[in-house]
Amino acid sequence: MRASQYFVSTLKEAPSDAEIASHKLMLRAGLIRKVAAGIYTYMPMGLRVIRKVENIVREEMDRAGAMELAMPMVQPAELWQETGRWDKMGEELLRFKDRHARDFALQPTSEEVVTDIARQELKSYRQLPKNFYQIQTKFRDERRPRFGVMRGREFTMKDAYSFDRDVEGAGRSYDIMYAAYSRIFDRLGLAYRAVAADTGAIGGDRSHEFQVIADTGEDAIVYCPQSDYAANIELAEAVSLLAGRVAPAAALTRTPTPGKATCADVAALLGVPLETTVKSLVLATDDVDEKGQPAGVTVWLLLVRGDHDLNEVKAGKLEGLKNGFRFATEAEIVEHFGCKPGYLGPIGLKKPVKVIADRTVADMADFICGANEADFHFTGANWGRDLPEPDLIADLRNVVEGDPSPDGKGTLAIQRGIEVGHVFYLGTKYSKAMNATFLDEDGRPKPFEMGCYGIGITRIPGAAIEQNHDERGIIWPDAIAPFQVVICPVGWSRSEAVRDTATALYETLRAAGVDAILDDRDERPGVMFADWELIGVPHRVTIGDRGLKEGQAEYQGRRDAEAARIAIDGLADAVLARLGARRGL
Amino acid sequence: MRASQYFVSTLKEAPSDAEIASHKLMLRAGLIRKVAAGIYTYMPMGLRVIRKVENIVREEMDRAGAMELAMPMVQPAELWQETGRWDKMGEELLRFKDRHARDFALQPTSEEVVTDIARQELKSYRQLPKNFYQIQTKFRDERRPRFGVMRGREFTMKDAYSFDRDVEGAGRSYDIMYAAYSRIFDRLGLAYRAVAADTGAIGGDRSHEFQVIADTGEDAIVYCPQSDYAANIELAEAVSLLAGRVAPAAALTRTPTPGKATCADVAALLGVPLETTVKSLVLATDDVDEKGQPAGVTVWLLLVRGDHDLNEVKAGKLEGLKNGFRFATEAEIVEHFGCKPGYLGPIGLKKPVKVIADRTVADMADFICGANEADFHFTGANWGRDLPEPDLIADLRNVVEGDPSPDGKGTLAIQRGIEVGHVFYLGTKYSKAMNATFLDEDGRPKPFEMGCYGIGITRIPGAAIEQNHDERGIIWPDAIAPFQVVICPVGWSRSEAVRDTATALYETLRAAGVDAILDDRDERPGVMFADWELIGVPHRVTIGDRGLKEGQAEYQGRRDAEAARIAIDGLADAVLARLGARRGL
Repeated sequence: MRASQYFVSTLKEAPSDAEIASHKLMLRAGLIRKVAAGIYTYMPMGLRVIRKVENIVREEMDRAGAMELAMPMVQPAELWQETGRWDKMGEELLRFKDRHARDFALQPTSEEVVTDIARQELKSYRQLPKNFYQIQTKFRDERRPRFGVMRGREFTMKDAYSFDRDVEGAGRSYDIMYAAYSRIFDRLGLAYRAVAADTGAIGGDRSHEFQVIADTGEDAIVYCPQSDYAANIELAEAVSLLAGRVAPAAALTRTPTPGKATCADVAALLGVPLETTVKSLVLATDDVDEKGQPAGVTVWLLLVRGDHDLNEVKAGKLEGLKNGFRFATEAEIVEHFGCKPGYLGPIGLKKPVKVIADRTVADMADFICGANEADFHFTGANWGRDLPEPDLIADLRNVVEGDPSPDGKGTLAIQRGIEVGHVFYLGTKYSKAMNATFLDEDGRPKPFEMGCYGIGITRIPGAAIEQNHDERGIIWPDAIAPFQVVICPVGWSRSEAVRDTATALYETLRAAGVDAILDDRDERPGVMFADWELIGVPHRVTIGDRGLKEGQAEYQGRRDAEAARIAIDGLADAVLARLGARRGL
Repeated sequence: MRASQYFVSTLKEAPSDAEIASHKLMLRAGLIRKVAAGIYTYMPMGLRVIRKVENIVREEMDRAGAMELAMPMVQPAELWQETGRWDKMGEELLRFKDRHARDFALQPTSEEVVTDIARQELKSYRQLPKNFYQIQTKFRDERRPRFGVMRGREFTMKDAYSFDRDVEGAGRSYDIMYAAYSRIFDRLGLAYRAVAADTGAIGGDRSHEFQVIADTGEDAIVYCPQSDYAANIELAEAVSLLAGRVAPAAALTRTPTPGKATCADVAALLGVPLETTVKSLVLATDDVDEKGQPAGVTVWLLLVRGDHDLNEVKAGKLEGLKNGFRFATEAEIVEHFGCKPGYLGPIGLKKPVKVIADRTVADMADFICGANEADFHFTGANWGRDLPEPDLIADLRNVVEGDPSPDGKGTLAIQRGIEVGHVFYLGTKYSKAMNATFLDEDGRPKPFEMGCYGIGITRIPGAAIEQNHDERGIIWPDAIAPFQVVICPVGWSRSEAVRDTATALYETLRAAGVDAILDDRDERPGVMFADWELIGVPHRVTIGDRGLKEGQAEYQGRRDAEAARIAIDGLADAVLARLGARRGL
């Protein structure tokens, strides 16, 4: 490509509503332009990146035996009603009526449509396993779209769906996709981790997120540098930080803590470590009787150590809470604790409350907790002596850096990540809801065992930039750079020698299959360099009269501190050699 | 590809709602599956065809210097309001509100978004010309979707938009696209015609439709086999069929024609050729004064020869009618003609009526027309003698087969066609409406001269099938066949020699870049042949034990009446040679 015939449209400043690096840089480099909140046009330079991502994903999905199809963007309500998602999904599912007043939605994913295809097309176990995928436009009506392509409303996702005879087969399909995803993210040239994730109501252990490592990531990912343990923060198991409960050493003491309503304030006031305090969180469940009629409210007291945070996903899996919970109202709290929030604790309750202690809290002795009286805490509290043992001991908290790894093999570390892929075992959730069955070898109809596998195609450039940029701009991995190498001739219009050398190099590189761009815009070096550094082309060759006189051109890798000189004699081979190392040839 | 690992899903019968050959065959061959009215999933076999079409279109658009981008499917109302299309477009524009009650539409085309991009990005004449295109999902909420992918609601279109400094530049951009389209349809392997089409309110002569020739096409396309004249029926110019008006020979005679309200019936009753009769059509326009207030109704009488049909597009371009017309009500007709429809004519009007005669009618003498009296016609009517000369003589009718070509070089023929592409000069319609300007060399802002260029990507397989099929199924052109060649081993499970020979051929063809499929499903020959003939693979090689004993395999082209024998020795080369002729190598 010649730059004069292409579309280079860089901006000095990003619009003020761009908050994060990738959003700013994608706008400044001319990769995207905003059309509406969370809705973008991919400009030619940006679409080049998207197409390269798509091609890698497509090649690896095909290699893994998945078959590409294309399901519609506009999907009828009837299918979504079969699985109940028409009612269950919130406003993120964009719904509308067609001219005949029939209900439709824009696809955010396609479980319903693909399950409908399977029940029509896959009649026999002989046709299994099958894996269908599409690379298609999706829509999710985010309440607050932001971060550019990272949390947009219209986006491109690769979504795949596997159909198997049984759980073992589904496990094999899952493993094949896990391996394909690993190859995809390897080839994309991104630093990533596959982390175990929550399976929600489906259960089992087959859910992994593929997270691109970036300090600005929205997700906390937990891993053990000494082992292969890796999970997202929602799932990562927190063990007790104490070897076991020691005998009480202090007496229970009602201690004034005026105006100190947080554990941190209390610890500071009393001059003790935060780790000696216990935090109280009050939840409520609205109970129903066998007939589904309201049957009162149960109040739950969840206890985590003062320096820990409640993990609501973990809480939501516990018996009694797994059908849904809410935070208790102040009236409910006063009724059960005789005290407003800020000084709550498990000792001296007014009405029965279910007490669930985090594993660490259950092992604590001589701890500090609210006294259920404004401006007072108890110190020296001990299980069994001052209050009954908890109703339940459970993993209730988020892990923190330095926690022991649950596999016993080291210490946990935490990184930030951007979720770009997810592999998920669905079981028979959709096939049963939609009565999608095949005839098994025994002649009986059985529901398909399914898995679903997503990759956020349009999110990947954003994640790549969050991971790879500097103050000058984007630094693309070679595999998805809009161009692999830019040739910058200094004095294009003035020097025939420069023009000839640059054009010859360009043509040789193109012939060798290198995606090169020749900057024939006749701009000054400063303008050219600033543009291509902002756009993030990973390799640059500069050719000028001064260098030519000495028989030399200049090579600079986008991450290199200094440029290197290359002899004009054999220039193309030298450039190819430098690319080769990163081309994966 | 091996068929056992692919998805072959043929049906014996097409669903009863499939009306035309392409719709039936695409369903039977498993290329598409219906999701809702006019909304389909492209199954793997169908998507292969779509991807091949897309790739050819993309290559030729890139070669023509156009730049691919991707505009969003979901577009904000604000842009559509700037051009007035938000209000002007009917229910085909699918509109909805997002969760914040803002108005959006699904793109049927993208003039507004691309013009918005141009006004932001193209500041100077130095950046022109530019041509942006996308290959994207579109939606048009057809009142009555039908004919499968031919008139669907969700479809893929390649839409391109050119931006130029001036009319001459826009003409060059138009010519470049016209040439690119010709290359595209050549490469697709389809018989097509580029025909001049109406430019509507834009004016000028720069609008061409690319029509795939097929007897089942919805459009009538007119061409002159003796010259390069070609136009669609809306535009094709009809000349007078008479050399000039001859002198009256008959007297005007009020002739009883009881119950004969059509020209054909009258001609039959009187035993005269239909060509001696004149048909009367009554239109009305609702006039407005300078202030835009209603100012009465004008009634128009349009006269075409009894065997001709009125062309409403042509009528709509005439002075007085070009701001919109309607057919007159019965009350208006009775008021002006003193008679109900069926016996109307230009002689003896009750109130003033504007009379427009088709060119041929204006040259007629001794003609027959309604007498404005039920059950009576005039015979022997003559202009000037029996009625005043018409207010206007114009081309009012559709051409018919055998008409003289308007270029004077021969006789017109008519074919049926399916519109698959359209190139169109837009002028400044959108740029002026959206205030999209660039700074010209003289330092002044000027609106872009625009063109738009569409190709119905998902319609092309349908058109290809309408043009190329037989009673056994589809016959794909090589360039867009889901597979170029199928290898059918007879006795796959039973004969190692067959397996080895077929597999070796398959691997050699794949290595040579041929898109081959090996049917390793272990089906009987009849089943294999029926499937691949239905699917329309253009080349088939059959390998069986009986042939192998004689050192031979069988080759059959999808259009060939008989199979040919090929020696096993050199089999791959022989097959490659047969493909080569159609591979465009």
